[in-house]
Amino acid sequence: MLPEKPFLPITSRDNPRLKHLRGLLEHASVRRKSSQTVLEGIHLLDAYQRAGKIPDSIFIAESAQTHPEANDLLDAWPSVARFILPDALYKEMRTLGQGIDIMALIDTAFVALPEQLNTDVLILEDVQDAGNVGTLLRTAAAAGIKQVICTKGTALVWSPRVLRAGMGAQFGIQVIEHADIKEILERLTIPLHATSSHANQSLYALNLKTPIAWLMGNEGQGASQIALENAISVSIPQPGGQESLNVAVAGAVCMFEMVRQRLI
Amino acid sequence: MLPEKPFLPITSRDNPRLKHLRGLLEHASVRRKSSQTVLEGIHLLDAYQRAGKIPDSIFIAESAQTHPEANDLLDAWPSVARFILPDALYKEMRTLGQGIDIMALIDTAFVALPEQLNTDVLILEDVQDAGNVGTLLRTAAAAGIKQVICTKGTALVWSPRVLRAGMGAQFGIQVIEHADIKEILERLTIPLHATSSHANQSLYALNLKTPIAWLMGNEGQGASQIALENAISVSIPQPGGQESLNVAVAGAVCMFEMVRQRLI
Repeated sequence: MLPEKPFLPITSRDNPRLKHLRGLLEHASVRRKSSQTVLEGIHLLDAYQRAGKIPDSIFIAESAQTHPEANDLLDAWPSVARFILPDALYKEMRTLGQGIDIMALIDTAFVALPEQLNTDVLILEDVQDAGNVGTLLRTAAAAGIKQVICTKGTALVWSPRVLRAGMGAQFGIQVIEHADIKEILERLTIPLHATSSHANQSLYALNLKTPIAWLMGNEGQGASQIALENAISVSIPQPGGQESLNVAVAGAVCMFEMVRQRLI
Repeated sequence: MLPEKPFLPITSRDNPRLKHLRGLLEHASVRRKSSQTVLEGIHLLDAYQRAGKIPDSIFIAESAQTHPEANDLLDAWPSVARFILPDALYKEMRTLGQGIDIMALIDTAFVALPEQLNTDVLILEDVQDAGNVGTLLRTAAAAGIKQVICTKGTALVWSPRVLRAGMGAQFGIQVIEHADIKEILERLTIPLHATSSHANQSLYALNLKTPIAWLMGNEGQGASQIALENAISVSIPQPGGQESLNVAVAGAVCMFEMVRQRLI
Protein backbone atom coordinates (compact mmCIF):
# COMPACT_ATOMS: atom_id res chain seq x y z
CA MET A 1 0.00 0.00 0.00
CA LEU A 2 1.18 3.48 -0.80
CA PRO A 3 2.02 5.73 2.13
CA GLU A 4 -0.85 8.16 2.69
CA LYS A 5 -0.30 11.76 1.75
CA PRO A 6 0.24 14.04 4.72
CA PHE A 7 -2.34 16.69 5.61
CA LEU A 8 -1.22 20.09 4.36
CA PRO A 9 -2.58 22.95 6.45
CA ILE A 10 -4.34 25.96 4.93
CA THR A 11 -4.75 28.79 7.39
CA SER A 12 -5.36 31.91 5.33
CA ARG A 13 -8.47 32.77 3.37
CA ASP A 14 -6.16 34.27 0.76
CA ASN A 15 -4.58 30.93 0.03
CA PRO A 16 -4.80 30.55 -3.77
CA ARG A 17 -6.18 26.98 -3.59
CA LEU A 18 -8.93 28.15 -1.29
CA LYS A 19 -9.71 31.09 -3.53
CA HIS A 20 -10.02 28.74 -6.49
CA LEU A 21 -12.28 26.40 -4.49
CA ARG A 22 -14.51 29.31 -3.49
CA GLY A 23 -14.65 30.42 -7.13
CA LEU A 24 -15.73 26.93 -8.21
CA LEU A 25 -18.46 26.85 -5.56
CA GLU A 26 -19.82 30.24 -6.49
CA HIS A 27 -19.31 30.83 -10.19
CA ALA A 28 -20.38 28.74 -13.16
CA SER A 29 -17.81 30.66 -15.26
CA VAL A 30 -14.94 29.41 -13.08
CA ARG A 31 -16.24 25.84 -13.31
CA ARG A 32 -16.47 26.07 -17.07
CA LYS A 33 -13.09 27.70 -17.63
CA SER A 34 -11.21 25.26 -15.41
CA SER A 35 -13.31 22.14 -16.23
CA GLN A 36 -13.43 21.47 -12.51
CA THR A 37 -16.05 21.46 -9.79
CA VAL A 38 -16.40 20.83 -6.07
CA LEU A 39 -18.17 17.93 -4.40
CA GLU A 40 -19.39 18.98 -1.00
CA GLY A 41 -20.34 16.64 1.83
CA ILE A 42 -19.74 13.02 2.62
CA HIS A 43 -22.62 11.59 0.55
CA LEU A 44 -21.39 12.95 -2.77
CA LEU A 45 -17.79 12.04 -2.03
CA ASP A 46 -18.92 8.55 -1.10
CA ALA A 47 -20.81 8.19 -4.38
CA TYR A 48 -17.72 9.40 -6.25
CA GLN A 49 -15.59 6.82 -4.52
CA ARG A 50 -18.09 4.02 -5.18
CA ALA A 51 -18.09 4.99 -8.86
CA GLY A 52 -14.36 4.25 -8.87
CA LYS A 53 -13.32 7.85 -9.43
CA ILE A 54 -10.38 9.74 -7.94
CA PRO A 55 -10.55 13.44 -7.01
CA ASP A 56 -7.85 16.00 -7.63
CA SER A 57 -7.66 17.02 -3.97
CA ILE A 58 -9.56 16.91 -0.69
CA PHE A 59 -10.33 19.73 1.76
CA ILE A 60 -11.36 18.86 5.27
CA ALA A 61 -12.17 20.82 8.42
CA GLU A 62 -10.05 20.08 11.48
CA SER A 63 -12.97 18.70 13.48
CA ALA A 64 -13.98 16.32 10.67
CA GLN A 65 -10.52 14.80 10.44
CA THR A 66 -11.21 12.07 12.97
CA HIS A 67 -14.69 11.21 11.71
CA PRO A 68 -14.80 7.48 10.74
CA GLU A 69 -16.69 8.08 7.47
CA ALA A 70 -14.21 10.76 6.44
CA ASN A 71 -11.36 8.45 7.36
CA ASP A 72 -12.74 5.65 5.21
CA LEU A 73 -12.70 8.00 2.27
CA LEU A 74 -9.20 9.23 2.95
CA ASP A 75 -8.03 5.61 3.24
CA ALA A 76 -9.62 4.82 -0.12
CA TRP A 77 -7.69 7.64 -1.77
CA PRO A 78 -4.19 7.43 -0.24
CA SER A 79 -2.45 9.27 -3.05
CA VAL A 80 -4.79 12.24 -3.25
CA ALA A 81 -3.54 15.60 -1.95
CA ARG A 82 -5.33 16.53 1.25
CA PHE A 83 -5.63 19.93 2.87
CA ILE A 84 -6.77 20.66 6.37
CA LEU A 85 -8.54 23.88 7.38
CA PRO A 86 -9.49 25.47 10.68
CA ASP A 87 -13.23 24.91 11.26
CA ALA A 88 -13.98 28.63 11.06
CA LEU A 89 -12.36 28.92 7.63
CA TYR A 90 -14.19 25.85 6.32
CA LYS A 91 -17.53 27.17 7.60
CA GLU A 92 -17.06 30.45 5.77
CA MET A 93 -16.86 28.54 2.53
CA ARG A 94 -19.36 25.72 2.81
CA THR A 95 -22.75 25.95 1.14
CA LEU A 96 -24.29 22.92 2.89
CA GLY A 97 -25.66 22.94 6.42
CA GLN A 98 -24.09 21.06 9.28
CA GLY A 99 -22.58 17.67 8.47
CA ILE A 100 -19.16 16.13 8.00
CA ASP A 101 -17.12 19.04 6.70
CA ILE A 102 -15.31 17.61 3.71
CA MET A 103 -15.05 18.67 0.07
CA ALA A 104 -13.25 17.39 -3.00
CA LEU A 105 -12.07 19.20 -6.07
CA ILE A 106 -12.67 17.08 -9.19
CA ASP A 107 -12.07 17.36 -12.91
CA THR A 108 -15.10 17.39 -15.20
CA ALA A 109 -13.89 16.47 -18.64
CA PHE A 110 -15.69 18.00 -21.61
CA VAL A 111 -17.57 15.32 -23.55
CA ALA A 112 -18.26 15.98 -27.23
CA LEU A 113 -21.57 15.10 -28.83
CA PRO A 114 -21.13 11.63 -30.40
CA GLU A 115 -21.30 11.40 -34.20
CA GLN A 116 -24.19 8.99 -33.94
CA LEU A 117 -26.82 8.74 -31.25
CA ASN A 118 -28.11 5.18 -31.41
CA THR A 119 -28.50 3.99 -27.82
CA ASP A 120 -31.00 4.98 -25.11
CA VAL A 121 -30.54 8.65 -24.40
CA LEU A 122 -32.26 11.37 -22.40
CA ILE A 123 -32.19 14.87 -23.90
CA LEU A 124 -32.80 17.83 -21.60
CA GLU A 125 -33.82 20.81 -23.72
CA ASP A 126 -33.62 24.03 -21.73
CA VAL A 127 -34.64 22.42 -18.43
CA GLN A 128 -33.85 25.36 -16.17
CA ASP A 129 -34.41 24.24 -12.62
CA ALA A 130 -31.35 22.67 -10.99
CA GLY A 131 -33.51 20.37 -8.87
CA ASN A 132 -35.34 19.07 -11.94
CA VAL A 133 -32.09 18.45 -13.83
CA GLY A 134 -30.53 16.61 -10.89
CA THR A 135 -33.63 14.50 -10.35
CA LEU A 136 -33.83 13.64 -14.06
CA LEU A 137 -30.17 12.52 -14.05
CA ARG A 138 -30.78 10.36 -10.98
CA THR A 139 -33.89 8.83 -12.52
CA ALA A 140 -32.18 8.17 -15.86
CA ALA A 141 -29.32 6.42 -14.08
CA ALA A 142 -31.79 4.27 -12.12
CA ALA A 143 -33.66 3.40 -15.32
CA GLY A 144 -30.43 2.24 -16.93
CA ILE A 145 -30.02 5.13 -19.37
CA LYS A 146 -26.29 5.74 -19.72
CA GLN A 147 -26.27 8.93 -21.78
CA VAL A 148 -27.80 12.35 -21.09
CA ILE A 149 -27.50 15.32 -23.44
CA CYS A 150 -28.21 18.85 -22.27
CA THR A 151 -28.78 21.86 -24.51
CA LYS A 152 -27.22 25.25 -23.79
CA GLY A 153 -30.26 26.44 -21.86
CA THR A 154 -30.27 23.55 -19.40
CA ALA A 155 -28.97 24.05 -15.84
CA LEU A 156 -25.29 23.11 -15.67
CA VAL A 157 -24.93 19.58 -14.37
CA TRP A 158 -21.76 20.16 -12.35
CA SER A 159 -23.21 22.98 -10.26
CA PRO A 160 -23.50 22.32 -6.51
CA ARG A 161 -27.33 22.28 -6.66
CA VAL A 162 -27.56 19.82 -9.55
CA LEU A 163 -24.91 17.62 -7.96
CA ARG A 164 -26.93 17.55 -4.75
CA ALA A 165 -30.24 16.73 -6.46
CA GLY A 166 -28.51 14.15 -8.70
CA MET A 167 -26.96 12.39 -5.67
CA GLY A 168 -23.94 11.53 -7.77
CA ALA A 169 -25.81 10.19 -10.82
CA GLN A 170 -23.38 12.35 -12.82
CA PHE A 171 -20.54 9.95 -11.99
CA GLY A 172 -22.09 6.86 -13.56
CA ILE A 173 -23.46 8.21 -16.82
CA GLN A 174 -22.07 10.10 -19.78
CA VAL A 175 -23.30 13.71 -19.70
CA ILE A 176 -22.89 15.95 -22.73
CA GLU A 177 -23.51 19.66 -22.13
CA HIS A 178 -23.98 22.80 -24.25
CA ALA A 179 -25.34 20.78 -27.17
CA ASP A 180 -27.28 22.33 -30.03
CA ILE A 181 -30.75 20.90 -30.55
CA LYS A 182 -30.35 20.84 -34.36
CA GLU A 183 -27.10 18.92 -34.14
CA ILE A 184 -28.67 16.46 -31.71
CA LEU A 185 -31.59 15.88 -34.08
CA GLU A 186 -29.23 15.35 -37.05
CA ARG A 187 -27.23 12.73 -35.22
CA LEU A 188 -30.14 10.70 -33.86
CA THR A 189 -30.68 7.38 -35.60
CA ILE A 190 -33.32 6.13 -33.14
CA PRO A 191 -36.88 7.42 -32.65
CA LEU A 192 -37.23 10.59 -30.58
CA HIS A 193 -40.11 10.81 -28.09
CA ALA A 194 -41.19 14.08 -26.48
CA THR A 195 -44.02 14.61 -24.03
CA SER A 196 -46.51 17.26 -25.01
CA SER A 197 -49.84 18.32 -23.54
CA HIS A 198 -51.20 18.50 -27.11
CA ALA A 199 -50.20 14.97 -28.06
CA ASN A 200 -52.80 12.30 -28.66
CA GLN A 201 -50.47 9.31 -28.69
CA SER A 202 -50.68 7.70 -25.26
CA LEU A 203 -47.43 6.68 -23.55
CA TYR A 204 -49.02 3.35 -22.74
CA ALA A 205 -49.76 2.54 -26.39
CA LEU A 206 -46.11 2.85 -27.45
CA ASN A 207 -43.63 0.07 -27.97
CA LEU A 208 -40.58 1.07 -25.94
CA LYS A 209 -38.52 -2.09 -26.23
CA THR A 210 -35.97 -0.88 -28.77
CA PRO A 211 -33.41 1.91 -28.17
CA ILE A 212 -35.15 5.20 -27.63
CA ALA A 213 -34.42 8.91 -27.24
CA TRP A 214 -36.52 10.84 -24.71
CA LEU A 215 -36.71 14.61 -24.83
CA MET A 216 -37.84 16.66 -21.85
CA GLY A 217 -38.44 20.35 -22.50
CA ASN A 218 -38.43 23.62 -20.64
CA GLU A 219 -40.61 23.88 -17.51
CA GLY A 220 -42.72 26.70 -18.91
CA GLN A 221 -42.59 26.32 -22.69
CA GLY A 222 -42.21 22.57 -23.07
CA ALA A 223 -40.30 21.09 -26.01
CA SER A 224 -39.30 23.44 -28.83
CA GLN A 225 -41.12 23.50 -32.16
CA ILE A 226 -38.19 21.93 -34.01
CA ALA A 227 -37.95 19.14 -31.45
CA LEU A 228 -41.67 18.40 -31.64
CA GLU A 229 -41.54 18.36 -35.45
CA ASN A 230 -38.93 15.61 -35.27
CA ALA A 231 -40.48 13.62 -32.45
CA ILE A 232 -43.27 11.22 -31.71
CA SER A 233 -45.23 13.39 -29.34
CA VAL A 234 -46.41 11.49 -26.31
CA SER A 235 -49.16 12.19 -23.83
CA ILE A 236 -49.31 10.82 -20.30
CA PRO A 237 -52.96 10.05 -19.52
CA GLN A 238 -54.05 12.07 -16.47
CA PRO A 239 -57.42 10.97 -15.13
CA GLY A 240 -57.37 13.86 -12.64
CA GLY A 241 -57.41 16.30 -15.52
CA GLN A 242 -54.34 18.27 -14.49
CA GLU A 243 -52.90 20.49 -17.12
CA SER A 244 -49.34 19.23 -16.85
CA LEU A 245 -46.93 17.30 -14.69
CA ASN A 246 -43.64 18.52 -13.31
CA VAL A 247 -40.97 17.79 -15.95
CA ALA A 248 -38.98 15.47 -13.66
CA VAL A 249 -42.15 13.52 -12.92
CA ALA A 250 -43.11 13.30 -16.60
CA GLY A 251 -39.60 12.06 -17.38
CA ALA A 252 -39.78 9.46 -14.62
CA VAL A 253 -43.15 8.14 -15.76
CA CYS A 254 -41.84 7.77 -19.34
CA MET A 255 -38.51 6.20 -18.44
CA PHE A 256 -40.08 3.71 -16.04
CA GLU A 257 -42.75 2.70 -18.54
CA MET A 258 -39.76 1.80 -20.73
CA VAL A 259 -38.25 -0.18 -17.82
CA ARG A 260 -41.56 -2.01 -17.29
CA GLN A 261 -41.95 -2.99 -20.92
CA ARG A 262 -38.43 -4.33 -21.12
CA LEU A 263 -38.89 -6.49 -18.03
CA ILE A 264 -41.74 -8.45 -19.57
CA MET B 1 -73.86 41.60 -11.78
CA LEU B 2 -72.76 42.86 -8.42
CA PRO B 3 -70.92 46.17 -8.35
CA GLU B 4 -67.21 45.54 -7.90
CA LYS B 5 -65.67 46.34 -4.57
CA PRO B 6 -63.59 49.52 -4.60
CA PHE B 7 -59.81 49.35 -4.11
CA LEU B 8 -58.91 50.25 -0.56
CA PRO B 9 -55.46 51.79 -0.26
CA ILE B 10 -52.85 50.54 2.21
CA THR B 11 -49.95 52.93 2.56
CA SER B 12 -48.27 52.06 5.85
CA ARG B 13 -46.22 49.01 6.65
CA ASP B 14 -47.79 49.09 10.10
CA ASN B 15 -51.25 48.48 8.68
CA PRO B 16 -52.63 45.53 10.69
CA ARG B 17 -53.84 43.67 7.58
CA LEU B 18 -50.40 43.95 6.05
CA LYS B 19 -48.76 42.78 9.25
CA HIS B 20 -51.02 39.74 9.29
CA LEU B 21 -50.23 39.02 5.63
CA ARG B 22 -46.52 39.25 6.35
CA GLY B 23 -46.97 36.92 9.32
CA LEU B 24 -48.73 34.38 7.12
CA LEU B 25 -45.98 34.53 4.52
CA GLU B 26 -43.20 34.10 7.05
CA HIS B 27 -44.46 31.97 9.92
CA ALA B 28 -46.04 28.52 9.90
CA SER B 29 -47.34 29.24 13.41
CA VAL B 30 -49.40 32.21 12.14
CA ARG B 31 -50.81 30.09 9.31
CA ARG B 32 -51.77 27.34 11.71
CA LYS B 33 -53.33 29.60 14.35
CA SER B 34 -55.41 31.56 11.89
CA SER B 35 -56.17 28.69 9.46
CA GLN B 36 -55.25 31.03 6.65
CA THR B 37 -52.50 31.31 4.08
CA VAL B 38 -51.36 33.54 1.23
CA LEU B 39 -51.38 32.70 -2.46
CA GLU B 40 -48.70 34.66 -4.22
CA GLY B 41 -48.53 35.37 -7.94
CA ILE B 42 -50.96 35.17 -10.80
CA HIS B 43 -50.56 31.44 -11.51
CA LEU B 44 -51.69 30.27 -8.09
CA LEU B 45 -54.54 32.76 -7.97
CA ASP B 46 -55.62 31.61 -11.40
CA ALA B 47 -55.63 27.98 -10.30
CA TYR B 48 -57.66 28.97 -7.25
CA GLN B 49 -60.20 30.72 -9.42
CA ARG B 50 -60.43 27.81 -11.86
CA ALA B 51 -61.08 25.49 -8.89
CA GLY B 52 -64.16 27.60 -8.16
CA LYS B 53 -62.79 28.99 -4.89
CA ILE B 54 -63.16 32.50 -3.49
CA PRO B 55 -60.41 34.21 -1.47
CA ASP B 56 -60.91 36.28 1.66
CA SER B 57 -59.16 39.32 0.20
CA ILE B 58 -56.78 40.42 -2.54
CA PHE B 59 -53.65 42.55 -2.28
CA ILE B 60 -52.25 44.14 -5.42
CA ALA B 61 -49.39 46.50 -6.22
CA GLU B 62 -50.30 49.77 -7.92
CA SER B 63 -48.45 48.93 -11.11
CA ALA B 64 -50.18 45.53 -11.44
CA GLN B 65 -53.64 47.06 -11.21
CA THR B 66 -54.01 47.57 -14.95
CA HIS B 67 -52.53 44.24 -15.96
CA PRO B 68 -55.10 42.30 -18.06
CA GLU B 69 -54.54 38.98 -16.26
CA ALA B 70 -54.95 40.65 -12.88
CA ASN B 71 -58.08 42.37 -14.12
CA ASP B 72 -59.62 39.09 -15.26
CA LEU B 73 -59.16 37.75 -11.76
CA LEU B 74 -60.62 40.82 -10.11
CA ASP B 75 -63.61 40.62 -12.47
CA ALA B 76 -64.14 36.99 -11.53
CA TRP B 77 -64.27 37.92 -7.84
CA PRO B 78 -66.34 41.13 -7.74
CA SER B 79 -67.36 40.80 -4.11
CA VAL B 80 -63.90 40.13 -2.68
CA ALA B 81 -62.26 42.89 -0.66
CA ARG B 82 -59.31 44.34 -2.56
CA PHE B 83 -56.43 46.36 -1.23
CA ILE B 84 -53.96 48.36 -3.26
CA LEU B 85 -50.38 48.99 -2.17
CA PRO B 86 -47.60 51.25 -3.41
CA ASP B 87 -45.13 49.15 -5.43
CA ALA B 88 -42.35 49.72 -2.90
CA LEU B 89 -44.47 48.38 -0.05
CA TYR B 90 -45.55 45.31 -2.05
CA LYS B 91 -41.95 44.55 -3.02
CA GLU B 92 -40.85 44.57 0.61
CA MET B 93 -43.28 41.79 1.29
CA ARG B 94 -43.20 39.53 -1.74
CA THR B 95 -41.25 36.29 -1.70
CA LEU B 96 -41.48 35.63 -5.45
CA GLY B 97 -39.30 37.29 -8.08
CA GLN B 98 -40.60 39.70 -10.66
CA GLY B 99 -44.08 39.02 -12.01
CA ILE B 100 -47.58 40.33 -11.69
CA ASP B 101 -47.62 41.62 -8.14
CA ILE B 102 -50.80 40.17 -6.70
CA MET B 103 -51.57 38.06 -3.62
CA ALA B 104 -54.67 36.63 -2.04
CA LEU B 105 -55.41 35.74 1.54
CA ILE B 106 -57.38 32.48 1.75
CA ASP B 107 -58.91 30.31 4.44
CA THR B 108 -57.55 26.79 4.85
CA ALA B 109 -60.12 24.78 6.69
CA PHE B 110 -58.92 22.05 9.01
CA VAL B 111 -59.92 18.63 7.67
CA ALA B 112 -60.27 15.79 10.18
CA LEU B 113 -59.05 12.30 9.41
CA PRO B 114 -62.05 10.36 8.07
CA GLU B 115 -63.36 7.48 10.19
CA GLN B 116 -62.78 5.09 7.34
CA LEU B 117 -60.16 5.26 4.62
CA ASN B 118 -61.53 3.20 1.76
CA THR B 119 -60.81 5.14 -1.42
CA ASP B 120 -57.53 5.81 -3.24
CA VAL B 121 -55.30 7.77 -0.92
CA LEU B 122 -51.70 8.99 -0.80
CA ILE B 123 -50.07 9.07 2.64
CA LEU B 124 -46.99 11.26 3.12
CA GLU B 125 -45.13 10.07 6.18
CA ASP B 126 -42.59 12.65 7.32
CA VAL B 127 -41.77 13.84 3.81
CA GLN B 128 -39.72 16.87 4.76
CA ASP B 129 -38.83 18.68 1.59
CA ALA B 130 -41.40 21.27 0.51
CA GLY B 131 -40.61 20.68 -3.17
CA ASN B 132 -41.18 16.94 -2.82
CA VAL B 133 -44.49 17.43 -1.00
CA GLY B 134 -45.75 19.92 -3.58
CA THR B 135 -44.71 17.67 -6.46
CA LEU B 136 -46.37 14.64 -4.85
CA LEU B 137 -49.63 16.58 -4.42
CA ARG B 138 -49.51 17.70 -8.05
CA THR B 139 -48.81 14.17 -9.25
CA ALA B 140 -51.57 12.66 -7.07
CA ALA B 141 -54.07 15.18 -8.45
CA ALA B 142 -53.03 14.31 -12.02
CA ALA B 143 -53.34 10.59 -11.31
CA GLY B 144 -56.88 11.11 -10.04
CA ILE B 145 -56.17 10.55 -6.34
CA LYS B 146 -58.52 12.84 -4.43
CA GLN B 147 -57.23 12.41 -0.88
CA VAL B 148 -53.78 13.02 0.59
CA ILE B 149 -52.93 12.49 4.26
CA CYS B 150 -49.81 14.01 5.81
CA THR B 151 -48.28 13.01 9.13
CA LYS B 152 -47.03 15.59 11.62
CA GLY B 153 -43.49 15.43 10.26
CA THR B 154 -44.44 16.25 6.67
CA ALA B 155 -43.86 19.76 5.28
CA LEU B 156 -46.98 21.89 5.76
CA VAL B 157 -48.99 21.90 2.56
CA TRP B 158 -50.16 25.51 2.81
CA SER B 159 -46.66 26.98 3.04
CA PRO B 160 -45.60 29.24 0.17
CA ARG B 161 -42.99 26.74 -1.06
CA VAL B 162 -45.35 23.75 -1.11
CA LEU B 163 -48.05 25.84 -2.77
CA ARG B 164 -45.59 26.84 -5.46
CA ALA B 165 -44.38 23.28 -6.13
CA GLY B 166 -47.96 21.96 -6.01
CA MET B 167 -49.12 24.51 -8.57
CA GLY B 168 -52.50 24.65 -6.86
CA ALA B 169 -53.07 20.89 -6.61
CA GLN B 170 -54.08 21.66 -3.00
CA PHE B 171 -57.29 23.27 -4.26
CA GLY B 172 -58.69 20.22 -6.02
CA ILE B 173 -57.98 17.47 -3.52
CA GLN B 174 -58.77 16.85 0.13
CA VAL B 175 -55.63 17.27 2.24
CA ILE B 176 -55.53 16.09 5.84
CA GLU B 177 -52.57 17.31 7.90
CA HIS B 178 -50.99 16.52 11.28
CA ALA B 179 -52.28 12.94 11.16
CA ASP B 180 -50.91 10.20 13.36
CA ILE B 181 -49.55 7.16 11.52
CA LYS B 182 -51.15 4.69 13.96
CA GLU B 183 -54.57 6.27 13.54
CA ILE B 184 -54.17 6.22 9.78
CA LEU B 185 -53.29 2.53 9.84
CA GLU B 186 -56.27 1.73 12.08
CA ARG B 187 -58.72 3.45 9.77
CA LEU B 188 -57.47 1.94 6.52
CA THR B 189 -59.76 -0.69 5.03
CA ILE B 190 -57.86 -0.99 1.75
CA PRO B 191 -54.40 -2.45 1.16
CA LEU B 192 -51.47 -0.19 2.02
CA HIS B 193 -48.47 -0.15 -0.32
CA ALA B 194 -45.12 1.37 0.63
CA THR B 195 -41.96 1.50 -1.46
CA SER B 196 -38.89 0.10 0.19
CA SER B 197 -35.40 -0.61 -1.08
CA HIS B 198 -35.51 -3.94 0.78
CA ALA B 199 -38.75 -5.13 -0.81
CA ASN B 200 -38.81 -8.04 -3.21
CA GLN B 201 -42.34 -7.57 -4.54
CA SER B 202 -42.03 -5.77 -7.88
CA LEU B 203 -44.39 -2.85 -8.55
CA TYR B 204 -45.08 -4.34 -11.95
CA ALA B 205 -46.30 -7.64 -10.52
CA LEU B 206 -49.04 -6.01 -8.40
CA ASN B 207 -52.71 -5.70 -9.24
CA LEU B 208 -53.54 -2.03 -8.74
CA LYS B 209 -57.06 -1.94 -10.13
CA THR B 210 -58.96 -1.77 -6.82
CA PRO B 211 -58.79 1.16 -4.34
CA ILE B 212 -55.32 1.49 -2.94
CA ALA B 213 -53.37 3.41 -0.29
CA TRP B 214 -49.84 4.50 -1.18
CA LEU B 215 -47.37 5.50 1.50
CA MET B 216 -44.27 7.56 0.74
CA GLY B 217 -41.76 7.89 3.56
CA ASN B 218 -39.11 10.28 4.74
CA GLU B 219 -36.34 11.22 2.27
CA GLY B 220 -33.57 9.82 4.44
CA GLN B 221 -35.18 7.08 6.52
CA GLY B 222 -37.93 5.85 4.22
CA ALA B 223 -41.18 4.49 5.63
CA SER B 224 -41.35 3.86 9.38
CA GLN B 225 -41.18 0.38 10.85
CA ILE B 226 -44.84 0.38 11.86
CA ALA B 227 -45.90 1.48 8.39
CA LEU B 228 -43.80 -1.23 6.73
CA GLU B 229 -45.20 -3.88 9.09
CA ASN B 230 -48.69 -2.98 7.91
CA ALA B 231 -47.91 -2.58 4.24
CA ILE B 232 -47.21 -4.56 1.13
CA SER B 233 -43.67 -3.42 0.53
CA VAL B 234 -43.01 -2.62 -3.08
CA SER B 235 -39.81 -2.37 -5.05
CA ILE B 236 -39.38 -0.39 -8.23
CA PRO B 237 -37.05 -2.36 -10.51
CA GLN B 238 -33.99 -0.24 -11.31
CA PRO B 239 -31.87 -1.76 -14.06
CA GLY B 240 -29.23 0.96 -13.53
CA GLY B 241 -28.66 -0.34 -10.02
CA GLN B 242 -29.21 2.94 -8.21
CA GLU B 243 -29.74 2.68 -4.52
CA SER B 244 -32.92 4.74 -4.40
CA LEU B 245 -35.08 7.16 -6.31
CA ASN B 246 -36.18 10.60 -5.18
CA VAL B 247 -39.39 10.15 -3.16
CA ALA B 248 -41.46 12.29 -5.54
CA VAL B 249 -40.20 10.20 -8.45
CA ALA B 250 -40.92 6.91 -6.68
CA GLY B 251 -44.43 8.17 -5.89
CA ALA B 252 -45.00 9.18 -9.50
CA VAL B 253 -43.84 5.84 -10.87
CA CYS B 254 -46.20 4.00 -8.49
CA MET B 255 -49.23 6.22 -9.03
CA PHE B 256 -48.87 6.15 -12.81
CA GLU B 257 -48.49 2.38 -12.89
CA MET B 258 -51.89 2.42 -11.17
CA VAL B 259 -53.21 4.79 -13.85
CA ARG B 260 -51.87 2.51 -16.59
CA GLN B 261 -53.41 -0.63 -15.19
CA ARG B 262 -56.81 1.01 -14.82
CA LEU B 263 -56.79 2.22 -18.43
CA ILE B 264 -56.54 -1.26 -19.84
